[in-house]
Amino acid sequence: MNKNKRIYLDYAAATPIDERVGVAMTQAWAEFANPDTPYQEGRSASAALEQAKKQIGNLLSVRTDEIYITSGATESDNLAILGAVRPHVRAGAHVITVATEHKSVLTPIHQLERESARVDYARVDSGGVVDLDDLTDKIGDSTVLVSVAYASSEIGTIQPLAKIGTIIKKVRESRVKQGNATPLFLHSDCSATVGLLPLSPARLGVDLLTLTGSKIYGPHTGVLYVRQGVAHMLQPLTFGGGQQKGLRPGREDVASTVGLALALEIAEGMRASEVERLTTLRNRLLHEVQQLSPTCLLNGSPTHRIANNLNITLPGFNGEDLVAHLDARGIAIATGAACAAADEVPSHVLLAIGRTADEAQSSLRITLGRQTTGEQIDRFLLIYKQVLARLATI
Amino acid sequence: MNKNKRIYLDYAAATPIDERVGVAMTQAWAEFANPDTPYQEGRSASAALEQAKKQIGNLLSVRTDEIYITSGATESDNLAILGAVRPHVRAGAHVITVATEHKSVLTPIHQLERESARVDYARVDSGGVVDLDDLTDKIGDSTVLVSVAYASSEIGTIQPLAKIGTIIKKVRESRVKQGNATPLFLHSDCSATVGLLPLSPARLGVDLLTLTGSKIYGPHTGVLYVRQGVAHMLQPLTFGGGQQKGLRPGREDVASTVGLALALEIAEGMRASEVERLTTLRNRLLHEVQQLSPTCLLNGSPTHRIANNLNITLPGFNGEDLVAHLDARGIAIATGAACAAADEVPSHVLLAIGRTADEAQSSLRITLGRQTTGEQIDRFLLIYKQVLARLATI
Repeated sequence: MNKNKRIYLDYAAATPIDERVGVAMTQAWAEFANPDTPYQEGRSASAALEQAKKQIGNLLSVRTDEIYITSGATESDNLAILGAVRPHVRAGAHVITVATEHKSVLTPIHQLERESARVDYARVDSGGVVDLDDLTDKIGDSTVLVSVAYASSEIGTIQPLAKIGTIIKKVRESRVKQGNATPLFLHSDCSATVGLLPLSPARLGVDLLTLTGSKIYGPHTGVLYVRQGVAHMLQPLTFGGGQQKGLRPGREDVASTVGLALALEIAEGMRASEVERLTTLRNRLLHEVQQLSPTCLLNGSPTHRIANNLNITLPGFNGEDLVAHLDARGIAIATGAACAAADEVPSHVLLAIGRTADEAQSSLRITLGRQTTGEQIDRFLLIYKQVLARLATI
Repeated sequence: MNKNKRIYLDYAAATPIDERVGVAMTQAWAEFANPDTPYQEGRSASAALEQAKKQIGNLLSVRTDEIYITSGATESDNLAILGAVRPHVRAGAHVITVATEHKSVLTPIHQLERESARVDYARVDSGGVVDLDDLTDKIGDSTVLVSVAYASSEIGTIQPLAKIGTIIKKVRESRVKQGNATPLFLHSDCSATVGLLPLSPARLGVDLLTLTGSKIYGPHTGVLYVRQGVAHMLQPLTFGGGQQKGLRPGREDVASTVGLALALEIAEGMRASEVERLTTLRNRLLHEVQQLSPTCLLNGSPTHRIANNLNITLPGFNGEDLVAHLDARGIAIATGAACAAADEVPSHVLLAIGRTADEAQSSLRITLGRQTTGEQIDRFLLIYKQVLARLATI
């Protein structure tokens, strides 16, 4: 055990590139030609690109032509949300989401509100789990989109996505009977769940699904799964050379796509063992943290929770201070989602599950990953104890 | 000279990653943390990102906060064009461009037309050079955007961009006098000119300038230069966590940005010598091609032309056939821009400069780059001669 080595516990914010993925990408730089060109080099690049997309499709049990490559989760979320709803804004489009969503979902939805869409937020319980009855009640004849992440990257809560899929399917069937031609799409940002939960769009009943390589030890490249028959109903965000059926023009980067495919393959391959390992580590961490700080509150569902996430409120402590003191002692964690943390306002996710602003600002998010070891957890707990003692005396 | 080695002459479509850029990117993968996080790893990633943006800014002689990182030229063009014009569409926004622009400029402008903007195309002469008088005449009180590429990636023609900048400046001054508050922006896609022409937004008088790493031996990452004071007047394409002042949210990739900065530095560093070398090679190539095929027509301006571009029409020959036969003999070139070539329709650029559909489909674009040598040109000419002879007898 190297006592000087820092301990990174913010895997929900970013993951290092897997060495194998790095090698695959540098090798794929040889496929530099434009995949749209007709000569040998272009055909080779095109084949490598298609192979990578096929691999991604296979890993999600979907068709290759349902896979769209984007610049990341933010773009995928925007393409799904703005793309699905904008064509229906004039007809009074209605959108349903939950207040615990990531900003890359909430902010485009706020934009749709400015463009005159109506938006409702389905209730969540104190663990952040969506109330399915309330969600069902909120679906109206003009609801075009329901967007609910499979799990929260901030509090780790897993949503009953397959059940939402079933609800949506029933509404669609009744619309057909009623002659209501308004489409109803289910979008889910699954960035936080890749490698932690099985991702089968068909089984989940989602039409649009967001992924990113940057949270699975891969490149900063996104995927938007678009169910067959849906792509032509989406308004593109950008317009150009017609790549990816015009839905997402601009040349796809072969190397990043190859890297993303391998990162996804590795994540899926080690999912079962990694979930078991992380669950054990995380539960021990939670148990010890509760021993060291008995007043701490667990944020997010204790039961419906992804394996790598721990989010706690420590009444009486300031989250920023905790982060700074832990950082000074070699621990890299944050108070919550990175983009929110930078704002220095209370986490909207914690407020949405009923925490007060004070409680929200007394919180820490600890997320584990592939490099996390039991020794690191032990050392974290030692330092955590020291920091709590130090701050309690200030 | 390796007789079996293929000769790549489509550098305008894509360039291989410079080895030094590749090394810099793989090293920068160590900066994997989210730049928005407050701890040591995040601050280090943020510093690397800012340093890379600063380097890009310095190379363009602009401020760091005028540099926005995007996923590529298509996104940069869309952000500039849709971003500048959409806020003014209801007020009758008017856009001016030229018909020789790349699809990543023309297609978002067509989208603006669908959204009720008015669009005019300034005349170009037979060499593709914009008619400044016509452009000036077309500027009206509601013109919001003029978008003209510095040079065409297809026919190589350099536009009098600085003169357009001066025209725009005068119109702006007269608007101030007249109390017309409509903004007027000049956008230029400079993807085809980096490393071939000096790029100083201030000297050129542009407000919005598109760059991409994928044409300068760097990563597939774009830049949009946005003149100070202009960013808040643009409507973002995507909405999210507030990165890049909300104009282009989503976490920037540190490694790609570092790679792009180095690619730009290398391109600028070798620009003068490379322009001289490529001009000599290209002129010899043109001379020899004219000797071998006396009926050939040069497309684009013979004088106002970037150093690496040769575009010719070979009456009586089919461009696709030429490309296929050259490919079979080890030469990688295309009939024109990759995304257009994939459509198998006559190049809109060649039609815009007065070529007939037949002539346009009898064309080849040959673009030289860093790996192009005199020996390669010799060998190309030998094979070119064989292919012409072969096709003439079919």
